[in-house]
Amino acid sequence: MTAIIESVPNFSCGRDPAVLAKILAPLEAQRGVKVLDYSSDYDHNRSVVTVMGEPEALLEALFQSIKVASELIDLREHQGEHPRMGACDVVPFIPLRNADLADCTKLAEELGERVGCELEIPVYLYESSARQAERKNLAKIRKGQFEGFAEKIQQAEWAPDFGPAKVHPSAGCTAIGARMPLIAFNINLNSSDLAIADAIAKKVRHIGGGLRFVKGMGVELKERGIVQVSMNLVNYEKSAIYQAFEMVKMEAKRYGVEVIGSELIGLAPMQALIDSAIYYLQIENFSADQIIEHRLLEGADDE
Amino acid sequence: MTAIIESVPNFSCGRDPAVLAKILAPLEAQRGVKVLDYSSDYDHNRSVVTVMGEPEALLEALFQSIKVASELIDLREHQGEHPRMGACDVVPFIPLRNADLADCTKLAEELGERVGCELEIPVYLYESSARQAERKNLAKIRKGQFEGFAEKIQQAEWAPDFGPAKVHPSAGCTAIGARMPLIAFNINLNSSDLAIADAIAKKVRHIGGGLRFVKGMGVELKERGIVQVSMNLVNYEKSAIYQAFEMVKMEAKRYGVEVIGSELIGLAPMQALIDSAIYYLQIENFSADQIIEHRLLEGADDE
Repeated sequence: MTAIIESVPNFSCGRDPAVLAKILAPLEAQRGVKVLDYSSDYDHNRSVVTVMGEPEALLEALFQSIKVASELIDLREHQGEHPRMGACDVVPFIPLRNADLADCTKLAEELGERVGCELEIPVYLYESSARQAERKNLAKIRKGQFEGFAEKIQQAEWAPDFGPAKVHPSAGCTAIGARMPLIAFNINLNSSDLAIADAIAKKVRHIGGGLRFVKGMGVELKERGIVQVSMNLVNYEKSAIYQAFEMVKMEAKRYGVEVIGSELIGLAPMQALIDSAIYYLQIENFSADQIIEHRLLEGADDE
Repeated sequence: MTAIIESVPNFSCGRDPAVLAKILAPLEAQRGVKVLDYSSDYDHNRSVVTVMGEPEALLEALFQSIKVASELIDLREHQGEHPRMGACDVVPFIPLRNADLADCTKLAEELGERVGCELEIPVYLYESSARQAERKNLAKIRKGQFEGFAEKIQQAEWAPDFGPAKVHPSAGCTAIGARMPLIAFNINLNSSDLAIADAIAKKVRHIGGGLRFVKGMGVELKERGIVQVSMNLVNYEKSAIYQAFEMVKMEAKRYGVEVIGSELIGLAPMQALIDSAIYYLQIENFSADQIIEHRLLEGADDE
């Protein structure tokens, strides 16, 4: 089966649809690549694009797209609420099918090499592709933002992984790396007390002693008069949806509060939901090949 | 998206692999069709083939395959434990993707017409495609088997839907119809008492007052020293896996018995498992488009 990789490039451009259209064009034109979604935020002045495709085709289209962004976006004139350091700020590669994080890191390195050499934009490898522990976390790399990087990039420990040790005058720097698909999963409580949702989130998330690959916080849903535990599951294979769900239920009990529902935001891999079905239904020796759709995907490549 | 249909033709031939190979050949040669699985049973003297494909391609390949079977199998010389009335005994059409039971009935009628006219084999439409209530149930149609049909087919109420009102001398009759995917789901109990598994099955299955689309019975797993409730879910959209699972747990309680696991046998549609994940995780407003693999399947047709 052909490998399929997802990417979610973030561009520092959220107010001019004509510019975004030009940035999207190479992704939309490339055979073997499909733009699934894009959205722009005016306040953040940022656009997030979701795209998937075969590895080499995706790499080529992303390179062209980053090139267009570097020509059309000038960070010296950019203002927005979202932290940013580059015209194309960050490019994650996410394994979807017949690929793993190592394959995605190879792609990240190839793209980093081209962006660094051909466009002269400094590139930092982040997340799974980071070559130094302090570069795993994107927020740490981006700290100081575009304006602070002229000085930061001079420090030996912040020399880029690819490209010149000199910020591109208008396009800044770019972070590229492999990561697992991220699942946004929110659990609603029959309470309007934000402090309760916050306290539950703190017990469930990694930083508070909870599940290794769960981030979370309390959020108020004012229209519905309830609160929710809003989570990001950053590795559903290791910290599963059902684990997060059961841990929230467990913590809610001590406040006499109940879970009244949940929401899955955006896309999730089939396996993440299947894993929960298998847990609750106690299915023994299940194989993904038993799912008819897997056979359809295999079949699709045969013709 | 292209429609994809599954079919599971049953052939009255389980002892001669060379004959089966010739019957399979048209299915394997047809572009747009994929043989997923086949298995032969010596005692039953029967082979079950699982195949899927685009509607018209599947129809053509199945017709050719039935034609070969009608030439190579002679029911006058056929003995086996499984009830049968035709060389190709039964052909179900099952909607997998972008198709429903009505689409499958159209296919069943087209194939029935060709088998009846061109091969002169009487055809009965069954299950969802039945035109009379008493033809919904395959066992009722097949009653009397090949040997009894010379007489049965003369009765006005058993005139075939297609083809001559005269049994094909060597190839008998064939049932063709649309049905939902069938899910074989077994639930293991921490008991060795078959009477308990049987009693639970009787409360859960339709015939005993239980779920509308569940068939079931108790089975002994002698090697493991336990019993199981063995079920067929014949319409997972209406009687869901989690409903069957929870009802078995509920009934087991009265015997002080516990569910220790379950098994999914063979193939199941992704949605059947996703439905259970959504139930247990209490996910609100879930759409199948949120599953990445659905987007991959869409993408596969784009190129």
